[in-house]
Amino acid sequence: MGKSVVIGVDLGGTKIATAAADLDGSLLSKVIKPTCPERGEDAVIETIVDSVKEAAASAGASKGDIKSIGIGSPGPIDPKAGTVIFAPNLMWHNVPIVHMLEGILDLPVCLENDANVAGLGEYRFGAGKGSKNMIYITVSTGVGGGLILDGEIYAGSFGMAGEVGHTTIVNDGPLCGCGNQGCLEALAAGPAIARKAQACILHGEETIMTEMVAGRVEEITSKTVGEAALAGDLLAKEIVDKTGEYLGIGVANLINVINPDTVVIGGGVSNMGELLFAPVRRTVEKRAIKAAFEKVKIVKAGLGTDAGLVGAVCLALGQV
Amino acid sequence: MGKSVVIGVDLGGTKIATAAADLDGSLLSKVIKPTCPERGEDAVIETIVDSVKEAAASAGASKGDIKSIGIGSPGPIDPKAGTVIFAPNLMWHNVPIVHMLEGILDLPVCLENDANVAGLGEYRFGAGKGSKNMIYITVSTGVGGGLILDGEIYAGSFGMAGEVGHTTIVNDGPLCGCGNQGCLEALAAGPAIARKAQACILHGEETIMTEMVAGRVEEITSKTVGEAALAGDLLAKEIVDKTGEYLGIGVANLINVINPDTVVIGGGVSNMGELLFAPVRRTVEKRAIKAAFEKVKIVKAGLGTDAGLVGAVCLALGQV
Repeated sequence: MGKSVVIGVDLGGTKIATAAADLDGSLLSKVIKPTCPERGEDAVIETIVDSVKEAAASAGASKGDIKSIGIGSPGPIDPKAGTVIFAPNLMWHNVPIVHMLEGILDLPVCLENDANVAGLGEYRFGAGKGSKNMIYITVSTGVGGGLILDGEIYAGSFGMAGEVGHTTIVNDGPLCGCGNQGCLEALAAGPAIARKAQACILHGEETIMTEMVAGRVEEITSKTVGEAALAGDLLAKEIVDKTGEYLGIGVANLINVINPDTVVIGGGVSNMGELLFAPVRRTVEKRAIKAAFEKVKIVKAGLGTDAGLVGAVCLALGQV
Repeated sequence: MGKSVVIGVDLGGTKIATAAADLDGSLLSKVIKPTCPERGEDAVIETIVDSVKEAAASAGASKGDIKSIGIGSPGPIDPKAGTVIFAPNLMWHNVPIVHMLEGILDLPVCLENDANVAGLGEYRFGAGKGSKNMIYITVSTGVGGGLILDGEIYAGSFGMAGEVGHTTIVNDGPLCGCGNQGCLEALAAGPAIARKAQACILHGEETIMTEMVAGRVEEITSKTVGEAALAGDLLAKEIVDKTGEYLGIGVANLINVINPDTVVIGGGVSNMGELLFAPVRRTVEKRAIKAAFEKVKIVKAGLGTDAGLVGAVCLALGQV
């Protein structure tokens, strides 16, 4: 019999990352497999089961050494029922993933929304370490969020808390995929940043971004904009600054309601660094309650793409 | 020796309401005294001490029968230190009210922000009874709020959570007293409603409100607007509808972040009833995550002006 381990699974639309960790949360092994959601939910479940076994074996643990499994999944999910309610990237609708995995593996399985799980990872082992109440915001293709209050994921009454990306920032703003107008996601996520740059170029604005994509303006992404801004391009800097301002309105609203000690911002767009964080802080200073702003730290996420995996391990540890 | 009681104190800028209650939370007596903050903080503390003794006596309890005291105060307050950080209506700045009262009365005293306390009252005995996670919003001269999560006041890391009134609703909206632009309070509180009506009349719009105040347009209050709207006045109805829309944006943002099962709206402006609640619900339906909207109840507060007093009693009961 080897040493006791827990398993964390970060389930995504393109890949499934799985890690074994010891009971202190230190990662011992990591397995990455493609999700291939088009093969159907049973095949995805099978891939998860294989990953769990492989991750344990790589860590020198047998199946009997696994104490519990934590899973972060795209949502909305129902943490009590253990079902993924709806996940377009997985083409899943009401999939009882916890029941399915417990049936096969005969181990306790805990499910949470992926942004909540990544937030938990940052809280325990990342940029939020030592905080009491933390807000996690991830800005990439979408804008997601998680609230970690007093050491625990706060999932709300029905598992849907933390949908920061769909708070209204500009009441007559652009349409969002969710049907609302002016959501933070419609203003500050990667695609919104790219669209803004493309529209400005089509309106004749001069920028090095045109060269960067060799004239193929439709290939501009938020990464292009971030790189151009870092290189000093005025249009790109302006777009990043405005993105930070929108994000700042969202963060200020969250600070006024939640009064956290720490706000952690992650996801690909957060790699723009101070060019993004400076307008976020400037806007929060203007819009948040002064005493709340003075006491809050607004910091970049510390775990990068591992946040979800580390958080899933933390989720599993909560079951031991 | 009489029966055990707790005391709740609702400290306001104009009056101090104090009640004795039995250990089930049933009110046994009620004492109202003017605050007279201009007489200084020691005089106000003395009035509270007198009120506590009178409320206990009226309930047939001696001082030895009092188990604990709960106080709701205008904020921001520091619940851990037991101080009122800043309360313009009381002309208070860093007043250690808990320490002062405990020194005089030799009883455990618990302090919380008044909106949080009123929320707690609605949660335990009012419109939020039976809920798990509830948001309380009070709309009167200002807009305040309180979060009651899993049975407890959620005060945040520094006691400032629930400042719903200062979330940004219209990013280039009117200036708010807090220094920000387009806060919910600057758009939907009583004074904003009255100002909107006055401005429309000065721009020549026809309305029965002009008659209602005998031409003294400056005397129009949000109550005038509410009454005119109920009487079918088109301008007043339009203003109330727009107020409900602003409030709905704020409520939708809160629902997306907190995912509560119940939102309770109180305060004088909530007396406009369905004329206000219909546009709130319409806007929330448009702007909140569908699954979260479908499960949330948005209801009028049930305890009226007693919410703060009942909540203060609940706070005291938490100390027993």
